[in-house]
Amino acid sequence: MELRPPRGFRDVPPELAILRKEIISRLEAVYRRYGFDPLETPAVEHWEVLAGKYGEEAEQRLIWRFKDPWSDREYALRYDLTVPLARYVASHPEMPLPFKRYQIAPVWRHEEPQRGRYREFYQADVDIVGSPYPEADAEVINVIVDAMEAIGVSGGFRVMINDRRVLAGLFEEELGLSDPLPVYRAIDRLDKVGPEGVRAELERLLGAPAASRVMELLSFRGEPRDVLERLRMEHGSNKRAVEGIEHLAQVVDLVKRPSALVFDMALVRGLDYYTGPILEVVLDRPAIGSVAGGGRYDNLIGLLAKRQVPATGASIGLDRLIDAGVEVGLFSTSKRTYTQVVVVNVTPESFRYAWRVADQLRSWGFSVRVDLMRSGQDVQRRKASRWGVPVLAFVGPQEESANTVTFYSQSKGERVTVPLGEARQVLERLLS
Amino acid sequence: MELRPPRGFRDVPPELAILRKEIISRLEAVYRRYGFDPLETPAVEHWEVLAGKYGEEAEQRLIWRFKDPWSDREYALRYDLTVPLARYVASHPEMPLPFKRYQIAPVWRHEEPQRGRYREFYQADVDIVGSPYPEADAEVINVIVDAMEAIGVSGGFRVMINDRRVLAGLFEEELGLSDPLPVYRAIDRLDKVGPEGVRAELERLLGAPAASRVMELLSFRGEPRDVLERLRMEHGSNKRAVEGIEHLAQVVDLVKRPSALVFDMALVRGLDYYTGPILEVVLDRPAIGSVAGGGRYDNLIGLLAKRQVPATGASIGLDRLIDAGVEVGLFSTSKRTYTQVVVVNVTPESFRYAWRVADQLRSWGFSVRVDLMRSGQDVQRRKASRWGVPVLAFVGPQEESANTVTFYSQSKGERVTVPLGEARQVLERLLS
Repeated sequence: MELRPPRGFRDVPPELAILRKEIISRLEAVYRRYGFDPLETPAVEHWEVLAGKYGEEAEQRLIWRFKDPWSDREYALRYDLTVPLARYVASHPEMPLPFKRYQIAPVWRHEEPQRGRYREFYQADVDIVGSPYPEADAEVINVIVDAMEAIGVSGGFRVMINDRRVLAGLFEEELGLSDPLPVYRAIDRLDKVGPEGVRAELERLLGAPAASRVMELLSFRGEPRDVLERLRMEHGSNKRAVEGIEHLAQVVDLVKRPSALVFDMALVRGLDYYTGPILEVVLDRPAIGSVAGGGRYDNLIGLLAKRQVPATGASIGLDRLIDAGVEVGLFSTSKRTYTQVVVVNVTPESFRYAWRVADQLRSWGFSVRVDLMRSGQDVQRRKASRWGVPVLAFVGPQEESANTVTFYSQSKGERVTVPLGEARQVLERLLS
Repeated sequence: MELRPPRGFRDVPPELAILRKEIISRLEAVYRRYGFDPLETPAVEHWEVLAGKYGEEAEQRLIWRFKDPWSDREYALRYDLTVPLARYVASHPEMPLPFKRYQIAPVWRHEEPQRGRYREFYQADVDIVGSPYPEADAEVINVIVDAMEAIGVSGGFRVMINDRRVLAGLFEEELGLSDPLPVYRAIDRLDKVGPEGVRAELERLLGAPAASRVMELLSFRGEPRDVLERLRMEHGSNKRAVEGIEHLAQVVDLVKRPSALVFDMALVRGLDYYTGPILEVVLDRPAIGSVAGGGRYDNLIGLLAKRQVPATGASIGLDRLIDAGVEVGLFSTSKRTYTQVVVVNVTPESFRYAWRVADQLRSWGFSVRVDLMRSGQDVQRRKASRWGVPVLAFVGPQEESANTVTFYSQSKGERVTVPLGEARQVLERLLS
């Protein structure tokens, strides 16, 4: 029998789960600080809720879609956390706006598994529903930048930005591309295949002259204020583009760390539902692609409700971020247990006293293991050091008769016998 | 279009998600204190891993089973967290034992939805893999009892216990039932249909004389030491039952709060994989059935691996527990936001200063919202009070020119203007 998880799925062992929980709790703290509250939608959605929202590739190839075996009704595993949010908002017209929510949860995509890409992966989303203003887009960027800093990625990342209206204005209106999607897909591969690769693909799609004009547009890349100014000068008569340019300019103006921003005309984002500013967070190293992305989606809720509700948000791809961080040594999986103390009962007779000591230490909040295998003390010690537990608490007949415990800290090389009643302070010191 | 989640699924709005997160974090703290570490298995499993583990009903009616639309391979959503754990252990023979893990995550069952019963619900599991001894079963009971107390259910619950070997010894060997499952299913309904209902069903299944003997066995219920002593006296020659009796007696002896324990012969537990002690936690009120359950499953890992590995564990049914707790007023969903402060900008011109104040307060760790809707101050205030935010921070031209902020605490009825640099202490006091 196949004992591995299904292809593209994985078990997350303690050392990785401990790291992921630590990162999630830091992200969550930042999200809450900005006034986002949790909303949790189910893993399973009606297929028709997801249909027609993401674009062709997702819809036909990437969504885990299945029939209810008992009713023939079509369901799907959520593909992201945004469309389920839109459904929630659509079904709660009474909700006061703005609605600011976060959700940190797995989503499922039928991807070809590869480095940093799984079929089940965590997204950490923030969304602001109800505000059409650049303030909301700027807050999304600020919370994401703070989140990256809170997990220790300070400095080593850039936030690439663009606007769907700029793309539409330039590529669809000025260049007259009636079906821009293949072009967007081609320029989206700039980082992967380089400018010559993109040019070759564009020439195949559009012919050489149009390909050259697209390549020229890709030179709009760099410090956002400069690029937006150049865009204003060269494309100031394009109404749609200007809408995007002015909106983005206000966003840039409100971002706490504008030096992290890069305007990038090659940034298009794959999902159909974006309508305004879009963003991606790219780590300086390793070159693993984006670890977060998002944008404004003013029409998505309107697809589900009878009213239009503007919204903007972003999503951190937690598993890819963690893989990348572990690879460059930013994160470590060296913590293999939360356990702080292993109580070693020296003789089988001291077993009950060992349990009493463990209980006492737990009541003070320490994480404690005690022997459950009726092992000798050597085995108990060997396991404690294999798990990397920092402190041993020896308990034998002497300790029992004197109501004491003997601590040993491996890292400090210190051994000390103390009355059980005074063990708390000593243990805190040994663990500090 | 249907905007509600699929039947039996639900959206968890902020006030309920905040409560659930609080309860999860308390459970997690208790689990860690006992030295359990996180292991996270995927939502999707190969069907054949789940098949043949739970029993007929689960396998045929309750498991969400579907084909990979692209490969015809059969998958299933996990039905619990125990069988995936067994798969993980089976595929990691190198793992040092005991392996103590916890997992708090959703599982999926195709149940008929009803009060406290959903098709997606959270389980909070602890398991000890590797120990065949009563110490491990006792530790599982202790951690569950501590967990119940940590979330405030102190005193108001009982832990029902029994042992599968006692059941097998008495019902299968002494009464000679070759297929005891329908009988177990009948006695399992004792709390729902009462003794007369059970007797009627048993008479239908077995005839009156055998039904009477089963009903007699159900009188073994009460204080565990007494009941186990009576069982020893009346069934001491039944080897299989005695194995269970002696194992349970040792468990009872190690449990921190034996007064919470009730031996109950009618406790059978539905899942096929249990082999030794079994337990269920029942709240005194409301009468909603069990909120936690578990037991020893010494053969489950052996079904997947070539080696036998004993294991024992328990699972808290989080959503049912929360529903019950909210119903009796033990838990409250009155906290609708984590936000502690809403910065109200009094005039549009003070907008930037309002953002600066919000940033400053966030940098101290406070949860802060600031206007994103370009609303007037009345609207900003009204929303803050609708969300139940405790403190307002007014920011207008006066505050801006003096570099101050004016706090207003609704609950304390206090209004105070302070320099921004000194706002931290004042705000801490207003929130305390």
